[in-house]
Amino acid sequence: MSTFFTNEYFMRIALNEAKLAYEKGEIPVGAIVVANNQIIAKSHNLTELLHDVTAHAEIQAISSAANYLNAKYLKNCTLFVTLEPCQMCAGALYWSQISNIVCGAEDPKRGYRAIGGQIHPKTKITFGILEEECANLMKSFFESKR
Amino acid sequence: MSTFFTNEYFMRIALNEAKLAYEKGEIPVGAIVVANNQIIAKSHNLTELLHDVTAHAEIQAISSAANYLNAKYLKNCTLFVTLEPCQMCAGALYWSQISNIVCGAEDPKRGYRAIGGQIHPKTKITFGILEEECANLMKSFFESKR
Repeated sequence: MSTFFTNEYFMRIALNEAKLAYEKGEIPVGAIVVANNQIIAKSHNLTELLHDVTAHAEIQAISSAANYLNAKYLKNCTLFVTLEPCQMCAGALYWSQISNIVCGAEDPKRGYRAIGGQIHPKTKITFGILEEECANLMKSFFESKR
Repeated sequence: MSTFFTNEYFMRIALNEAKLAYEKGEIPVGAIVVANNQIIAKSHNLTELLHDVTAHAEIQAISSAANYLNAKYLKNCTLFVTLEPCQMCAGALYWSQISNIVCGAEDPKRGYRAIGGQIHPKTKITFGILEEECANLMKSFFESKR
């Protein structure tokens, strides 16, 4: 396996998605889905633009990846997301049976672990990839809104 | 307030949606969103047809109602759903800040209460409306798949 395709490499692409959200005035969360080192979905939070609380980056990425694969389940796929998923997104990831989740910043208030949600027992989750950069983008966004 | 618009009245419409799902080979869950006794969204589970695990009846109903209202939040709205929401849908309902949720059958295995999820503290939830009919439809579906 090439060392080119590191968690940091893919998280930087998710972070670029988060920056696109930021520029649109959306809470800056980005996500990508990767299968065999190929990016099969890219998305960012669009809840304000779409007036839709379900339009989190992860939900869009799951739907988009499933559409690409023409399959309900995201086995052998990895989601890279700049923020720990909320319970809604954890639930969607649970149903997708995705193999891996890689997170940037933690979300001690609204993250699925704080709320009491669950991911699928077969899903491996990794925290802390580009954590500071992902967290700083969120912090900068909320400071700009004060 | 008219006694015509009872919980049972609206749940029967959600149950008709669940029956449409059943006829398509989908797990039979239906949902509607009501505002001022007017139905502003109707949906049923479409996860198989769309190859999309996020296409639960509730997620579609929330998106559809928000689109109708041109607003993110479903304040002063009631969701009628034939089955207790899963954690994904509970999470979506949480974000929507919906005023009321009315459920048919309980889901002791995959319902949000079993998983450990939460609805919004301001949301009122009622269980057990047309419970037997809603549960029997699910039971009949899974028996037919054996």
